[in-house]
Amino acid sequence: MAGNTLGVLFRITTWGESHGDAVGVVIDGAPSGIPFTADHVQIWLDRRKPGGAKTSTARKEPDAARILSGTFEGRTTGTPISIMVENRDAKSSSYTDIMNLYRPGHGDITYEKKYGIRDYRGGGRASARETVGRVAAASLAHEILKREGISIVAATVALGGVKASKRDYEAMDQNPYLCPDADAARAMDLRVDAVRRQGDSLGGVVEIIATGVPAGLGEPVFEKLDAALAGALMGIGAVKGVEMGAGFEAARMTGFENNDPITPSGFASNHAGGVLAGISSGAPLVMRVAVKPIPSITKAQETIDISGEPAMIETRGRHDVAAIPRVNVVCEAMVALVLVDHLLRQRATAWRG
Amino acid sequence: MAGNTLGVLFRITTWGESHGDAVGVVIDGAPSGIPFTADHVQIWLDRRKPGGAKTSTARKEPDAARILSGTFEGRTTGTPISIMVENRDAKSSSYTDIMNLYRPGHGDITYEKKYGIRDYRGGGRASARETVGRVAAASLAHEILKREGISIVAATVALGGVKASKRDYEAMDQNPYLCPDADAARAMDLRVDAVRRQGDSLGGVVEIIATGVPAGLGEPVFEKLDAALAGALMGIGAVKGVEMGAGFEAARMTGFENNDPITPSGFASNHAGGVLAGISSGAPLVMRVAVKPIPSITKAQETIDISGEPAMIETRGRHDVAAIPRVNVVCEAMVALVLVDHLLRQRATAWRG
Amino acid sequence: MAGNTLGVLFRITTWGESHGDAVGVVIDGAPSGIPFTADHVQIWLDRRKPGGAKTSTARKEPDAARILSGTFEGRTTGTPISIMVENRDAKSSSYTDIMNLYRPGHGDITYEKKYGIRDYRGGGRASARETVGRVAAASLAHEILKREGISIVAATVALGGVKASKRDYEAMDQNPYLCPDADAARAMDLRVDAVRRQGDSLGGVVEIIATGVPAGLGEPVFEKLDAALAGALMGIGAVKGVEMGAGFEAARMTGFENNDPITPSGFASNHAGGVLAGISSGAPLVMRVAVKPIPSITKAQETIDISGEPAMIETRGRHDVAAIPRVNVVCEAMVALVLVDHLLRQRATAWRG
Amino acid sequence: MAGNTLGVLFRITTWGESHGDAVGVVIDGAPSGIPFTADHVQIWLDRRKPGGAKTSTARKEPDAARILSGTFEGRTTGTPISIMVENRDAKSSSYTDIMNLYRPGHGDITYEKKYGIRDYRGGGRASARETVGRVAAASLAHEILKREGISIVAATVALGGVKASKRDYEAMDQNPYLCPDADAARAMDLRVDAVRRQGDSLGGVVEIIATGVPAGLGEPVFEKLDAALAGALMGIGAVKGVEMGAGFEAARMTGFENNDPITPSGFASNHAGGVLAGISSGAPLVMRVAVKPIPSITKAQETIDISGEPAMIETRGRHDVAAIPRVNVVCEAMVALVLVDHLLRQRATAWRG
Repeated sequence: MAGNTLGVLFRITTWGESHGDAVGVVIDGAPSGIPFTADHVQIWLDRRKPGGAKTSTARKEPDAARILSGTFEGRTTGTPISIMVENRDAKSSSYTDIMNLYRPGHGDITYEKKYGIRDYRGGGRASARETVGRVAAASLAHEILKREGISIVAATVALGGVKASKRDYEAMDQNPYLCPDADAARAMDLRVDAVRRQGDSLGGVVEIIATGVPAGLGEPVFEKLDAALAGALMGIGAVKGVEMGAGFEAARMTGFENNDPITPSGFASNHAGGVLAGISSGAPLVMRVAVKPIPSITKAQETIDISGEPAMIETRGRHDVAAIPRVNVVCEAMVALVLVDHLLRQRATAWRG
Repeated sequence: MAGNTLGVLFRITTWGESHGDAVGVVIDGAPSGIPFTADHVQIWLDRRKPGGAKTSTARKEPDAARILSGTFEGRTTGTPISIMVENRDAKSSSYTDIMNLYRPGHGDITYEKKYGIRDYRGGGRASARETVGRVAAASLAHEILKREGISIVAATVALGGVKASKRDYEAMDQNPYLCPDADAARAMDLRVDAVRRQGDSLGGVVEIIATGVPAGLGEPVFEKLDAALAGALMGIGAVKGVEMGAGFEAARMTGFENNDPITPSGFASNHAGGVLAGISSGAPLVMRVAVKPIPSITKAQETIDISGEPAMIETRGRHDVAAIPRVNVVCEAMVALVLVDHLLRQRATAWRG
Repeated sequence: MAGNTLGVLFRITTWGESHGDAVGVVIDGAPSGIPFTADHVQIWLDRRKPGGAKTSTARKEPDAARILSGTFEGRTTGTPISIMVENRDAKSSSYTDIMNLYRPGHGDITYEKKYGIRDYRGGGRASARETVGRVAAASLAHEILKREGISIVAATVALGGVKASKRDYEAMDQNPYLCPDADAARAMDLRVDAVRRQGDSLGGVVEIIATGVPAGLGEPVFEKLDAALAGALMGIGAVKGVEMGAGFEAARMTGFENNDPITPSGFASNHAGGVLAGISSGAPLVMRVAVKPIPSITKAQETIDISGEPAMIETRGRHDVAAIPRVNVVCEAMVALVLVDHLLRQRATAWRG
Repeated sequence: MAGNTLGVLFRITTWGESHGDAVGVVIDGAPSGIPFTADHVQIWLDRRKPGGAKTSTARKEPDAARILSGTFEGRTTGTPISIMVENRDAKSSSYTDIMNLYRPGHGDITYEKKYGIRDYRGGGRASARETVGRVAAASLAHEILKREGISIVAATVALGGVKASKRDYEAMDQNPYLCPDADAARAMDLRVDAVRRQGDSLGGVVEIIATGVPAGLGEPVFEKLDAALAGALMGIGAVKGVEMGAGFEAARMTGFENNDPITPSGFASNHAGGVLAGISSGAPLVMRVAVKPIPSITKAQETIDISGEPAMIETRGRHDVAAIPRVNVVCEAMVALVLVDHLLRQRATAWRG
């Protein structure tokens, strides 16, 4: 395998299954001298915790982060930082009635095909629990980016077909969906309630904006900034599509409409989403991801059992109605991790003869 | 920089600018014994050549590939394969009137910000000419995939707002847009003519389907197959969005609608696009990319010159009206390169205790 | 930094300082289905534990390994394996009298120059304690290699100038120096006692032999098997030299003397040490490493303090007289890690057209 | 395979066989703005050319370098630099009488075992011809290092058992062996003549010293500076041993003898060879490599043919008596490539919170 490491200079390696003893991450390549304690990690882990929103599972995880190495007197030392979060509330027992059934839309069938092992206890590495490591690592990335004046925010711009028509970031923190449109948030609430009653689930769209990103990040031609961001975001469990700036809308525009005019005070529009030829332009980075509905639903579905016989499945366990808004902080994490790696890479590149 | 290499086991490194002496690629990690000659390369290079479609520039490049190493008696030897294509028809002179102007939607401004050098001669590495190396390398990837029963096809499913409503692959080869819908192709033709007269350009959507892909490819959690494909496709110059299977449409569906039922004879639908939890499921891979309109247009646009003063720009030179259909073969190339790398990686992974 | 990961397909990332909470490793890319429990790890950790030999410190570490992820029902699953060993007996207090002095032959001065941080508590990542992660990871590598018929042994062939003139591997396990020559071991014992009384330390030479290695491992031209082994071995704290087969002796031979004649039953000699042109030949791999004397000695030495003033230093703390024989298991670990990675890489390479 | 790339930020990928059309290299990640033309490359290629010394073959290669990309107006642009050197004087015909015999000490047998292909035309990638790409790439590395005040010199300190007892670098350039001891050079000359008459070949030791290297380079714990250098040097065809500073001699010293005392004006000795705990200390880097005798000799040797039958072989073709002094410039190249990569990496690391 060997696919659990991300980054070239700022590298993270995540580990841990949803039903094992713990999950965690090793960060390698962090600059020294950055203030970093378990409290920094906790703030971000708390944001991704279930229980905060009506879309989320009732599973309770204290998610207490422990930093095992790489810091001294509250600052990074330049050596690898190991962060561990124990799994306290994993109940494998709730899965016993579906242990012989493949779950539609779920990775249990492909994991078994790849590794030849059926781990029926839950999602394993395919569980959202795996993202604890990503978010923990990103808490340091955010700290570094903050010092460079870069900030990242992921807003829910669609849920269950309900679209946000505003970008009111103050409203965003006042509804449980992280939606920057209070009216849309109310409509989402009704939609979530209805779907939950049907034992079904919902998808949506998250828009991530990074401001303060300097021009010059991105390494053509295979590690362009947008390519790296797209790979990182598509690697989040529920994501099925990624677009930059105008994205799929750009496919319907003419060059004259889509090109962002350049003026002495900057770009007059931002259809490019902050990237030209794979290199950041100085304009805000704008990305949107399509988040599929949670595959584990209680509504009965057609499937097969492990001997290949047809069967019906009703997933019980504890599952969210939507990955949104818990996935939002993961989107922010992936963008932060890509940006901090490219910032460090650009420091080396920017040296000139 | 160091971003010009793609792949872990089957690795390619491309080089060359649009207005330099040559472009090329080094393929490292190809299995030995694969039949491979300049003729194999030529077939694919000819497909991406300008001149074949009404959307394309009049620039003529014989694009004759030369294999300089890594083969013996018509087969690969396991050592690096160097392929070079000379640039014969590069006229830097046609750019002299815009050498002091930044081109909207173009990478000249970001390349200068990154590298501190203004190379006014054309697109440099940001030019579509760079993709010659990718396509040449992919000609070997396709040859390997063919032996494994895998084939890849990229069809134009939208151009300038005209959408294909059929997937008639026989029709596809009978129109210059590689559109699998003869009626839509005719409508595209009218749209292209109109826009060309206005000195403007068009975007569209390309759908890439890979069939015969075995289950088990992809390396969770950061090098999932869909993440790798998304990164590879977003790294193509004109691409602004990537989706797998139902993609952005999945965001509007419920779990019950989006989940692909599993039956004894396989998945009953393919909203997942052939990937579950980042691992191929055995179903066809289905991807779509949003291709932005060509930024270089003759219609006058607002910009600034290199001293920061406002100016108007009308790009002359030789430019396509749309990156489609020339970009289609590049999409196929990127998918082929990712698949062959993951095939080789899976051979190592598939070994069991 | 980002230098704490080793391997391409079988990748390990180690973390942890000598005086932090714990040390550990994440193994990524291990094949699934390999029997692997904490007991497998413990056997190897016990071999590197201090206390076993007269050359070693009195520091006692139970070194109990905990596997936190990546196994299920006693076998690997293909997902990352996280192993942690808590530091129980770290006494930073014993270093307080030298916290303002640079230690000759020690990395405290270079770590401070690199990272801008003075961590006076002991060796940090430069401590032999860091090798716990390597040895823990290698316990799985050895398990995989065993199934392929490959075994690795590291013998002490010189210590404090006393050389082994035999290769009697039964004798090796009956003396505390892992010396394959009982007479030499007795002479080493006298040498160690004398030097210990002087408050000084000793170096030596370790010879590592890997048998059962199939022909064909190694990736020319920059990741040749001998290059990978040399890099891995030179990366062990105390190692100052590495040689393959005849090594430096080959520099004094003629081609006729040094070439290993080829016979129908194999190579008639093994001056090459099992590698030709960077690829394993099927003959045993033979490597020797020069191990420098432990730099921390109680004998007074000339140094400077952190303000640059001249000073004398007498290192107290708990230090070994020689890195040998504790380093031997680390040598075996590094060779095992390189071999298992190259075995997996060769599985991919060996596929032919 | 995929082992033909070296470096993380300053990356080179070499390609080409001794008997193919050309050899070359792609450099990715070079900073922009460095003066660099074919003339810079030529100076270094001329140093490695055969014909300069009595130890070398009569094969004549004009070795004219062509830079195909990555420069503009005589300076690097930050994009990949492709350098090609055509093979003009490759006579495969001279190998026909040994095409069915394995050559002792040569990689033809291991290449065949690895790749399943017998390329009887000569050394292929195992030939010294492959180092053209390394030296061409290093010509840019040297240019960058020079601007940082770093210089590298490789001196022949032993040949055929004759040792240099002085380090007189002025004398070094006045004898064909690059030996810093005029008397030893004369003795080497006699030794070479005698061995050549016997149809045999010689090995030796090359000492490489890099001065001006700043403290702080090297990435613990697997990419320490000495580990990276050892891997790079052991990856040169003829090298069988590598040591840093006192090297194998350190194994015979006590800690008190081996530790370099620290004084207000620097280290009082340099047994460490400029590296402590894998990080450069600011003292000169001192490395020595053991170079084995050329395996291709005219003296008859025992071997087998490709059907496994015993045979005698007398290699004719054009072969050097010793890899020294042609290998010296390759040693300098490998050290330069490692140093420039680590310099760039340290620029990123050196950023602090």
